[in-house]
Amino acid sequence: MSDSTVKFILSEKDIPTTWYNIIPDLPFQMMPPLHPGTLQPMNPGDLSRLFPMAVIEQEMSSKPEIDIPGEVLDVYRLWRPSPLFRARRLEAALRTPARIYYKYEGVSPAGSHKPNTAVAQAYYNKREGTRRLATETGAGQWGSALAMACSFFGLECSVYMVKVSYDQKPYRRALMQAYGADVTPSPSPKTAAGRSILAASPDSPGSLGIAISEAVEDAATHDDTKYSLGSVLNHVLLHQTVIGQEAQLQMEMAGEKPDYVVGCCGGGSNFGGLALPFVGETLKTKGSGRRGPRAIAVEPSACPTLTRGVYAYDYGDTAKVAPVAMMYTLGHGFVPAGIHAGGLRYHGDSPLVSALFHHGLIEARAVKQLPVFEAAVLFARSEGILPAPESAHAIRTAIDLAVEARETGADPAILIGLSGHGHFDLAAYDAYAAGILEDYEHPQDEIDRAIAELPVVNITAGEAS
Amino acid sequence: MSDSTVKFILSEKDIPTTWYNIIPDLPFQMMPPLHPGTLQPMNPGDLSRLFPMAVIEQEMSSKPEIDIPGEVLDVYRLWRPSPLFRARRLEAALRTPARIYYKYEGVSPAGSHKPNTAVAQAYYNKREGTRRLATETGAGQWGSALAMACSFFGLECSVYMVKVSYDQKPYRRALMQAYGADVTPSPSPKTAAGRSILAASPDSPGSLGIAISEAVEDAATHDDTKYSLGSVLNHVLLHQTVIGQEAQLQMEMAGEKPDYVVGCCGGGSNFGGLALPFVGETLKTKGSGRRGPRAIAVEPSACPTLTRGVYAYDYGDTAKVAPVAMMYTLGHGFVPAGIHAGGLRYHGDSPLVSALFHHGLIEARAVKQLPVFEAAVLFARSEGILPAPESAHAIRTAIDLAVEARETGADPAILIGLSGHGHFDLAAYDAYAAGILEDYEHPQDEIDRAIAELPVVNITAGEAS
Repeated sequence: MSDSTVKFILSEKDIPTTWYNIIPDLPFQMMPPLHPGTLQPMNPGDLSRLFPMAVIEQEMSSKPEIDIPGEVLDVYRLWRPSPLFRARRLEAALRTPARIYYKYEGVSPAGSHKPNTAVAQAYYNKREGTRRLATETGAGQWGSALAMACSFFGLECSVYMVKVSYDQKPYRRALMQAYGADVTPSPSPKTAAGRSILAASPDSPGSLGIAISEAVEDAATHDDTKYSLGSVLNHVLLHQTVIGQEAQLQMEMAGEKPDYVVGCCGGGSNFGGLALPFVGETLKTKGSGRRGPRAIAVEPSACPTLTRGVYAYDYGDTAKVAPVAMMYTLGHGFVPAGIHAGGLRYHGDSPLVSALFHHGLIEARAVKQLPVFEAAVLFARSEGILPAPESAHAIRTAIDLAVEARETGADPAILIGLSGHGHFDLAAYDAYAAGILEDYEHPQDEIDRAIAELPVVNITAGEAS
Repeated sequence: MSDSTVKFILSEKDIPTTWYNIIPDLPFQMMPPLHPGTLQPMNPGDLSRLFPMAVIEQEMSSKPEIDIPGEVLDVYRLWRPSPLFRARRLEAALRTPARIYYKYEGVSPAGSHKPNTAVAQAYYNKREGTRRLATETGAGQWGSALAMACSFFGLECSVYMVKVSYDQKPYRRALMQAYGADVTPSPSPKTAAGRSILAASPDSPGSLGIAISEAVEDAATHDDTKYSLGSVLNHVLLHQTVIGQEAQLQMEMAGEKPDYVVGCCGGGSNFGGLALPFVGETLKTKGSGRRGPRAIAVEPSACPTLTRGVYAYDYGDTAKVAPVAMMYTLGHGFVPAGIHAGGLRYHGDSPLVSALFHHGLIEARAVKQLPVFEAAVLFARSEGILPAPESAHAIRTAIDLAVEARETGADPAILIGLSGHGHFDLAAYDAYAAGILEDYEHPQDEIDRAIAELPVVNITAGEAS
């Protein structure tokens, strides 16, 4: 009547004690971040207004492994190690010879993978005397993770929340407030960046780019305050590698080497956290004849950064106060459609994920909103867990691969990164059920226009965009 | 900077393979359920229109242990064994010498303990050829659990959802629909019970009592359909004993015998599931001089069934079509205030929990809404998990006990049943933060009036109410 549940549980002693840093294993040099004013490479001092030194060191580190502090491990134990399941019921529903596995991060108290880095960032800030953290959030997944982490370490937390989400998604706002955070709709009159947007358009719905500008300005103009980012940067992906390291152990328990590792990709922290340890293993055993898994980053067709953007230096935010990074980008002026995967709407992408993609070490696919929700509902009815719309992008691609396998007679092992649950996203499921959700593919001319506004960069170490 | 996380993880082989039936260990006879038409004891045949035979046998069984079918265990493994934590950060925040533990059921895909029985009921129905299950739900916790269970076993699921919740809490409705359930606002024109309510008051907001009447009528009038209830009945509490059995093992791992076992109590399935194995252990070792834990059922002051109701035979529903049970009740005409712990608003209580309370084997307390939310927020900021408002009733009482211990110098071990997360209840947290939530204590004259409508029962085995 039902196919059997196969779950791979690790014990507490299997929680990784180091984060994996892929940088020393890369067969190429990473391009440095640039100062937004001078467009010249930033030094640690430039970053110290925004981040604590331990985080800056991690951002630039060439150490292959970085110890996870005991205080961070201690909080990780609330939800780590996270479970890995074989999706036997989904396989049966698809009648596929493929073996599908999923690593589930929705068991954290905030319901997603975000606390893996939020806790680390809050810890380092507390240790270095920061009193308050400022950050931005779109739909609220990141903001609620940081709010929780700050409550553990006794830090104040100020979240600039994109105004349209603040108004339309009161549940995530209420969660941040329950954790004690101060939540401000962005654009706000609290910052110069916010005031200038409001002066030009008093009814601005806000955007992630604007909210980043506000949070960065807040941190830069308050001595006791630092800035915290939930994706994109090297140290964020570093902290998320606990996911992939655990998954490696669990796939070994399953007697498998995955053929595909599939994760949704917005800023890149979920995808990177899962995929980097696998990609690193492939790089380390290069020449041994061992073939590593194909790592696939899945993004929405509405915000196709890797699949249709350019690899260039671009600003991370609207007001051009955040560091400029070498990344795949749709241009800092790009405004994606209001799809329900709010965590996948950033115009750029992690420099690490971008570089891996540029050098052919990972792949990327873009999928449309309706097939994503179709996959999400099939997954919920088969496996019980209702996925976050972001995570469902990876499920869609895994299902496509599994159906393909059925047709070609292959029997691959597919590992999905299931980054969070969808209990905060029921309005989106409701819209899908009511048939009022739309597919959306961003028009090429708009992408071209946004990309045309990229800065022209000439640095010794760099290349012109 | 933070106190350490102490988590007690069981392995898969520690998932109980039998449900614990307390009935043969009771030092008294349970009073039989009565037919709502004749007010005479029901026989298995009377119940067979509503339930599959396996469930009816469990409802009346005197076997001390009942095997959990492999197919049910197999689904349990998706989230069981559930974790048990020591709340070190909460203890530190309270500066209490008490040791506080919590058993967390929010790790299930539906976010609560309800799937423990939903899966079993769906399995037995499927095995006996049922095609469709009908049930009722208030806020939607139960409905979403049964919808998920039905999707696993290929059953149709029809949920009558209290209309005011259907309108005000679209997220739980959307979750049920994502699992494939058919959700109808109650009262509805689908049933005679619903039509008669609508004729009298077209704008009726509905109630759990009305929704039960509709679901029972639906099952009784369709050959392929059975009825499923998420609390109150013996077999439901039986299925939930996996919680308490696991908690016993985990408390042993912690080297503790709890002094207090505290659970919130509406219909009684969460409280019973946690407490019955502990109470049973005490009963079995009676005379050995061993003192068992004090088991405390916590209910809202707005619906104080155990603390201010009477122990009597009463109807389980508004239309008087469901079985009549001997229980603590506020009268089937009782309408509680619209508190946010929707799962604790039933006028009656589990006959098993009621009998244990009547015979002094468990205790009960009522707590008000505002102190409950105050406790919930303190818990979230200390332990990370945002509790469901229902579960927070137990947290409130545990905190009261811990503060009391600080003052008396005692050092008890307190075990909380944390039945679910509050990710669907953020509107309530929002109202609390905004200061617009009200305390509510039900007026005694209204309780007296509702109790005065109880049926007069004269049966051989029974006693007049």
